[in-house]
Amino acid sequence: MPGDTAIATVCLSGTLEDKLAAAAAAGFHGVEIFENDLIASRRSPSEIRRLCADLGLTIDLYQPFRDFEAVPPDLLRANLRRARRKFDLMAELGADTVLVCSSVSPDAVDDDELAAAQLRELAELAGERGIRVAYEALAWGRFVNTYEHAWRIVRRADHPALGVCLDSFHILSRRSDPRAIRTIPGEKIFFLQLADAPLLDMDVLHWSRHHRLFPGQGAFDLTAFTGHVVAAGYLGPLSLEVFNDVFRQADPRPAAVDAMRSLVALRESVGVLELPEAPRLDGHAFAELAVPGTVLADLGFAHVGTHRSKPVQLWQQGSARLLVNEAAEDGTISALGLISANPAGSARRAESLLAPVLPREHGPGEADLSAVAAPDGTEIFFCGGDGWLQDFVPTRAVQSGAGITGIDHVALTQPFDHFDEATLFYRSVLGLRPDPVSEFAAPFGLVRSRAVGDRDVRLTLDSALVRRGEWAPGVPSPQHVALTCDDALAVARALREAGAPLLEIPGNYYDDLEARFDLPFAARLRENSVLYDRDEDGEFLHFCTELVGSRVFFEVVQRIGGYRGYGVVNTPVYMTAHRERRLSLAGVE
Amino acid sequence: MPGDTAIATVCLSGTLEDKLAAAAAAGFHGVEIFENDLIASRRSPSEIRRLCADLGLTIDLYQPFRDFEAVPPDLLRANLRRARRKFDLMAELGADTVLVCSSVSPDAVDDDELAAAQLRELAELAGERGIRVAYEALAWGRFVNTYEHAWRIVRRADHPALGVCLDSFHILSRRSDPRAIRTIPGEKIFFLQLADAPLLDMDVLHWSRHHRLFPGQGAFDLTAFTGHVVAAGYLGPLSLEVFNDVFRQADPRPAAVDAMRSLVALRESVGVLELPEAPRLDGHAFAELAVPGTVLADLGFAHVGTHRSKPVQLWQQGSARLLVNEAAEDGTISALGLISANPAGSARRAESLLAPVLPREHGPGEADLSAVAAPDGTEIFFCGGDGWLQDFVPTRAVQSGAGITGIDHVALTQPFDHFDEATLFYRSVLGLRPDPVSEFAAPFGLVRSRAVGDRDVRLTLDSALVRRGEWAPGVPSPQHVALTCDDALAVARALREAGAPLLEIPGNYYDDLEARFDLPFAARLRENSVLYDRDEDGEFLHFCTELVGSRVFFEVVQRIGGYRGYGVVNTPVYMTAHRERRLSLAGVE
Repeated sequence: MPGDTAIATVCLSGTLEDKLAAAAAAGFHGVEIFENDLIASRRSPSEIRRLCADLGLTIDLYQPFRDFEAVPPDLLRANLRRARRKFDLMAELGADTVLVCSSVSPDAVDDDELAAAQLRELAELAGERGIRVAYEALAWGRFVNTYEHAWRIVRRADHPALGVCLDSFHILSRRSDPRAIRTIPGEKIFFLQLADAPLLDMDVLHWSRHHRLFPGQGAFDLTAFTGHVVAAGYLGPLSLEVFNDVFRQADPRPAAVDAMRSLVALRESVGVLELPEAPRLDGHAFAELAVPGTVLADLGFAHVGTHRSKPVQLWQQGSARLLVNEAAEDGTISALGLISANPAGSARRAESLLAPVLPREHGPGEADLSAVAAPDGTEIFFCGGDGWLQDFVPTRAVQSGAGITGIDHVALTQPFDHFDEATLFYRSVLGLRPDPVSEFAAPFGLVRSRAVGDRDVRLTLDSALVRRGEWAPGVPSPQHVALTCDDALAVARALREAGAPLLEIPGNYYDDLEARFDLPFAARLRENSVLYDRDEDGEFLHFCTELVGSRVFFEVVQRIGGYRGYGVVNTPVYMTAHRERRLSLAGVE
Repeated sequence: MPGDTAIATVCLSGTLEDKLAAAAAAGFHGVEIFENDLIASRRSPSEIRRLCADLGLTIDLYQPFRDFEAVPPDLLRANLRRARRKFDLMAELGADTVLVCSSVSPDAVDDDELAAAQLRELAELAGERGIRVAYEALAWGRFVNTYEHAWRIVRRADHPALGVCLDSFHILSRRSDPRAIRTIPGEKIFFLQLADAPLLDMDVLHWSRHHRLFPGQGAFDLTAFTGHVVAAGYLGPLSLEVFNDVFRQADPRPAAVDAMRSLVALRESVGVLELPEAPRLDGHAFAELAVPGTVLADLGFAHVGTHRSKPVQLWQQGSARLLVNEAAEDGTISALGLISANPAGSARRAESLLAPVLPREHGPGEADLSAVAAPDGTEIFFCGGDGWLQDFVPTRAVQSGAGITGIDHVALTQPFDHFDEATLFYRSVLGLRPDPVSEFAAPFGLVRSRAVGDRDVRLTLDSALVRRGEWAPGVPSPQHVALTCDDALAVARALREAGAPLLEIPGNYYDDLEARFDLPFAARLRENSVLYDRDEDGEFLHFCTELVGSRVFFEVVQRIGGYRGYGVVNTPVYMTAHRERRLSLAGVE
């Protein structure tokens, strides 16, 4: 069934048993068993068969069988001998389909007739045992490297036990046109392997073996691709085969959930699964974090409410609302409130996409907010309008304010292993559009950054490009809430005069800025430690506070015109300033 | 002077101050200051100048100035304005050479005449202030992307303050022939930047920005390249400019030492520096580790001596000698003894290549062994013949033995940040030839592996391809000593009968082996849990013990014919078996 889901064991980390347990827990129907995983296992094939049965998993594919076809007769004999052994093993395993990859062997010859005849012989051997042979063109196959070519050979061999295996990576990485898939009879498509990938300009073998991603995490159009396969009448499972350096060493349990989420979203986009739609998100309702209230007062926020039953204060300035959770871990952004056009609908969609739904804890008469956990543990609350404010007993504080008007975005540093998972989560669960990944050199290593969302709700996701070791500090790096204002220069001046802990930016930054641009307000940027960026559509002024918790700070931003970015070019500058400020507070010269 | 050494701040991690301190401590004469490092620094250019002077560093280059030449007149005016500001800054900084990279700007035009005229104008401006402009062809420059082209433009501009900057990466990555460098007058080569790199088939910009290495760590022939530049009469420093994802986040102090070692070795190979030669190494004298003596007895070793003054036992079988250090940390290989044709010469060479010389601790009448520390902390002792054995009081133990004859190799798992450094260390300090890097999929992530040495002394260096997080176990991974024998099947059987803790290899491994090869002794391999590999020149039989310390085990190998490898294809199998054995001992199902 194209509704069924499978995953190749090579996608996940650990022993075969670790992988099978993770796949079953994430709800997969079946697995492709990668030969090397079986070879290293202390369980015999029949024991693995029982284990899979106990876990509710079918074994949909045994893979791969390599370098079989278009060889001289003596090699064919050895290959058939090898195949017989593997077919015996598959019988024990209870797997009825074997993947045969197009040859990369120096012994193979460029002869479709011979390839077809030999594959026919293999299919005959397989068919006798109730096994099907799925022939796949590797993108780097020696003579056969397109799916059209593999299909021509299968058609020529014309055996009921021989069909093709289609792999989205091998097809899309070569920029092959996938539309001709519709011309292959569905029953001759024996298997479908799915992988996404970022667009990289490198050797396709290296790209394939290291950088594949789950559907929705990369740049391939898997919706269109899978649509062609479904339209052809394919009836087998949608199966993931993703070689990825990070997934290979990450905890397989969340990785399997991430994998399953990618298939749920793909099945929705292809139209073989219906999910609750993602309701429109209209803005940030609040951010909850643990910082001293005095810092918020210095920034012009007023303490306007106290939660009826929890140790939580509501602080407000303009439409920017911050919750200070006195019980939360120092310095983390623990929760985000997002304004949803349909909070219950947002929660239903999240749940259908495997987001952990958080237990609802609310006193009598308090708002019943739905919440789910993002991959990094941040709690996402769905708020409908301002009803949730009634949970706070108003104080008599008067809001004067320093010119801050709302929340622009929230920057969530992602754990190394969860960067790609986070993109897929926010894209599929919340319907936020991801920007391309950008990269910058921070003082202690390269950082990847990716924004999701649009003008109403914006999040930025950052992670180190190489997981850092002991030397590089700031692991995990600080997170921040970026607030908006209409006049960054005036707000910065007012806040500094009021004693807010604003971060000093070094003069060298302004010397360079003045060399690059002829700005009439350059002196005022320097005076107020305000950073500057521009793009084709507008300008961006922004400044930061010092770190106000162990790993959190505030940014204040002003967008002029249609500026769409986040001032990433300036991030290394304020990261260095944060580092030096912290060293100087610690008394280190 | 081509004897002088410099390093670009972009090679190292941290703040500008961290980088300068590390460069000075490693003995560099000068630095190239990367603009972004200065911009983020709280120190003004004149303060940086003073800091460098205090550290004994000259500022040899300010870099980079981009997208200057071959532009329309209004853009030229803006670029000259920018240049004036940067020249002012350089005056403050005390830097007299600026790097100008060939343009990648969409505003540039393909007009050598215009490029030369505008660079001449820039040089005129620079010359007035005593500044020199070094023009460099980026490998991905829009119109100018070869050194020959950059030199044609410089020659056409014909200004004393304009010369070329040569960068080995930009030249060798494009497979340009470097021999024509000899035709450039030495005084017109204003600067030389050196970087090595592995051969990668990818977009050259990505290759350059992420994967450069220090000379001697990659695949480029930097000796020939640098030889051409020296022959041309270049008189400036040899300066490193290496963009590398790992070095960017690693402790800059050892990284700077590694960098300096690469230049010392390069200067030797080019013939501008004389070092003590690396004496011939004739074999492994011993390996020192912390394991229970009972394990060695089970493996057929005899306790043949006790150190006169230290808590160290000498165990021997055939010519394999192991030192058991009862005081050492459980499970590490703490030291290697290598037989040197000239131990004092080995130590002198090591010292000249910045290897930390270990303090000599020996009682009266004991051998005075020279020793140095490898990058991972392993102590390397240089032994001349068997004299060192006299430090051990012989026991009356009788050697019977189980057929083990010597040490084949020692496998040292490398800390993630030090993999490339380790290669350079063993190659330059000990004169061991490195094999190419291989890669394999271990159960908990990809592993890079590289062997160094030849038939007399062999070491293998392994490291995770992606630094592992909390989930993947075995961080750091086990190390092992590989012992030789003449008949692995017989030795395995004898050891197992004697109760040695040999590792069981799963039956699935042998099913696969029998499918791949038709081996007459297949059943005996299976019976004795012996692994098998072959290459063009021979065969390899090997088996492992269980882990006998927290992170150490023994391997026993038999090389047949000219087999040159290390059975890496089987490593994932025994790694999984080690893992499962450990779980089963811990009572985890």
